[in-house]
Amino acid sequence: MRTKDEEKQEALFEATVRTVNKVGFASSSVAKIAKQAGVSPATLYIYYKNKEDLLISTYLNIKRRLSEVACRDIDETLPLRDNFRQVWFNLFWFTSRHPDYFQFAEQFSNSPYNDRINQKTVDKMFAPVADLIRRGIEMKVIKNMDVEIITAFVFYPAIILSNPRLCRNFDMSEHQIDQSFQLAWDAIKL
Amino acid sequence: MRTKDEEKQEALFEATVRTVNKVGFASSSVAKIAKQAGVSPATLYIYYKNKEDLLISTYLNIKRRLSEVACRDIDETLPLRDNFRQVWFNLFWFTSRHPDYFQFAEQFSNSPYNDRINQKTVDKMFAPVADLIRRGIEMKVIKNMDVEIITAFVFYPAIILSNPRLCRNFDMSEHQIDQSFQLAWDAIKL
Repeated sequence: MRTKDEEKQEALFEATVRTVNKVGFASSSVAKIAKQAGVSPATLYIYYKNKEDLLISTYLNIKRRLSEVACRDIDETLPLRDNFRQVWFNLFWFTSRHPDYFQFAEQFSNSPYNDRINQKTVDKMFAPVADLIRRGIEMKVIKNMDVEIITAFVFYPAIILSNPRLCRNFDMSEHQIDQSFQLAWDAIKL
Repeated sequence: MRTKDEEKQEALFEATVRTVNKVGFASSSVAKIAKQAGVSPATLYIYYKNKEDLLISTYLNIKRRLSEVACRDIDETLPLRDNFRQVWFNLFWFTSRHPDYFQFAEQFSNSPYNDRINQKTVDKMFAPVADLIRRGIEMKVIKNMDVEIITAFVFYPAIILSNPRLCRNFDMSEHQIDQSFQLAWDAIKL
């Protein structure tokens, strides 16, 4: 069970995502977000110093949720390809269910707030995925390329294909998702 | 030589991109954009009906420029892989030189204006690339998958890797760009 505090924070998180996606960063005031969350501005200020703090926390919260889902069920005892497939499906699943989170994150990256993000904090969240790539390179199962390049080929397509805004009028069948993972694997495997 | 009309339209195009990237869609007024372009609002209204018309035209202008560069030097007499490589490098080149266009386009896609875009108009601009993919499938050189899936694997990574905002602290050498294209090709080739 969630405590009352957790419930309020979750309501503020969802309200921030919804408000920013609807009216943009500039027009998203603390008052509007608090109202949307059904709390008073005073309550909002218990949890967040100001608008900037709220927006940055919301972005990091999305990254944390994405990374937690992405890394779920990574199992070092399984073959490397199975682990990549797991992460691929996890990302596909998460993005297709949360296009609103993705939309917020994209807008955030395009905003001046993005310069306030400590990239190391984000990298740490995705460390298990980076480890997977490094392990694949050491084992000579995948190509010896920079982690960012491997990521662009193996994981970005999952995010693109699962996003109804980027991939219009296009409903992937289970079989197509599986076939698509094969393309990702063919790109990076040695 | 550009006519005076063309110069004004180019100034309005650049001013729209710059203003939206700086203050967002909601706060980008016609007055602000005209001022940034160094023309009067009355002059702006000679070319564009209203703010919506200006924003949509700017988005389509970016798509048109991107598609013109992407399709440059496609040559049916050359092997298919060479043509894919050409489009890949074209896209990489364009995005790395115009992150501002990319930022505008991304924000546009996340805005309600996006619903006003006729997808067929955009598809038509990129028809030579779609033809290339279809030809590759017919010739059994690339995998028989939906054009959108092939695109997500072969061309999206070029856009990701060339964008300094998406791929931080990462300057690709000529050799790395070439190696990366090989990953793209490995993903889609039969």
